[in-house]
Amino acid sequence: MTKGEQTRRSILDEALGVATIAGLHGLSIGALADRTGMSKSGLFAHFRSKEQLQVAVVEHALDHFIATVIRPTLQAPRGEARVRALAHHWFTWGEQSQAGGCFFVTAAVELDDDPGPARDRLVAGQRDWLDLIANVFRTGIAEGQFRPDADPDQFAHDLYGVMLAYHHALRLLRDPAAGTRARRALDALVAAARA
Amino acid sequence: MTKGEQTRRSILDEALGVATIAGLHGLSIGALADRTGMSKSGLFAHFRSKEQLQVAVVEHALDHFIATVIRPTLQAPRGEARVRALAHHWFTWGEQSQAGGCFFVTAAVELDDDPGPARDRLVAGQRDWLDLIANVFRTGIAEGQFRPDADPDQFAHDLYGVMLAYHHALRLLRDPAAGTRARRALDALVAAARA
Repeated sequence: MTKGEQTRRSILDEALGVATIAGLHGLSIGALADRTGMSKSGLFAHFRSKEQLQVAVVEHALDHFIATVIRPTLQAPRGEARVRALAHHWFTWGEQSQAGGCFFVTAAVELDDDPGPARDRLVAGQRDWLDLIANVFRTGIAEGQFRPDADPDQFAHDLYGVMLAYHHALRLLRDPAAGTRARRALDALVAAARA
Repeated sequence: MTKGEQTRRSILDEALGVATIAGLHGLSIGALADRTGMSKSGLFAHFRSKEQLQVAVVEHALDHFIATVIRPTLQAPRGEARVRALAHHWFTWGEQSQAGGCFFVTAAVELDDDPGPARDRLVAGQRDWLDLIANVFRTGIAEGQFRPDADPDQFAHDLYGVMLAYHHALRLLRDPAAGTRARRALDALVAAARA
């Protein structure tokens, strides 16, 4: 990484922290200058506008998600083991997320009625993630572990719901049973898919 | 309703609309004065502080939810029919919510790390709702339609996930299959509970 890339990355780490708590709209180049000790003109050299900064933050969060969840998932053996690895790393992502909870849950609520490049980038990332869940599920069909008529896209949708319910129980309700409930919900989805 | 109660209700309708889009933190007595054409001092006569206004908005949203979802649910016959009525009215609530989506989904994300009376009121309301789902589910066990060892609290948690996934697919992803996916997820949950 060049020095410029390192600087850009450390700005984006800071910006991601702000956006997870205050939302992408709470992110201004002025506030970011205060937090990073950089000048506004220095920040403008990296991001030409607030809109471009928002898109860069969404992409930065996706990079983190790929490193933390997707890469280790794809190292697990194909089939049910990989589906369970995916859920495990995703749950861990939800638990270890910075203050403010999962960036994507916050951004989804913030941007759902807010057309523009940041929303487009977020939606594209979420669709890719749902496709990837469905493809990981398909390895279970290919390995003969899941029913051939099971619907991979439905599984992806349902697993998304399991994760959102977990996030809600964990973060808003502070429910001590949140983890147990999420694992039972996952077990039921996997059991219903078995050949 | 007295005139004072009517005024209070129309202020809260306006405030709920603002809070659903801009969040409870985006709600100020000043901005509300502009929107309702009332004086700030007139508004202060109804709500002594921004904090009290936020709590009143949460309670107002709960009142709407009781009228729109809970009351018609309890008119359905006990058992699976009532569980399905509950899901039906809840889905309809999610679809018909004002611009900004479901107030409770927005508020859950906004307040999860934000201790105070508004968060407390929201959490109490969500716990009551999860208990009510579990109790409606229990009527299915009592009627012999659901397995006696089915876990009503797990069902409530899982149905919450179905609803959150539906809201996400409908509002962020604008997925035309959102409704079909939600109904299939509900059918699977109910089928797994059947005696």
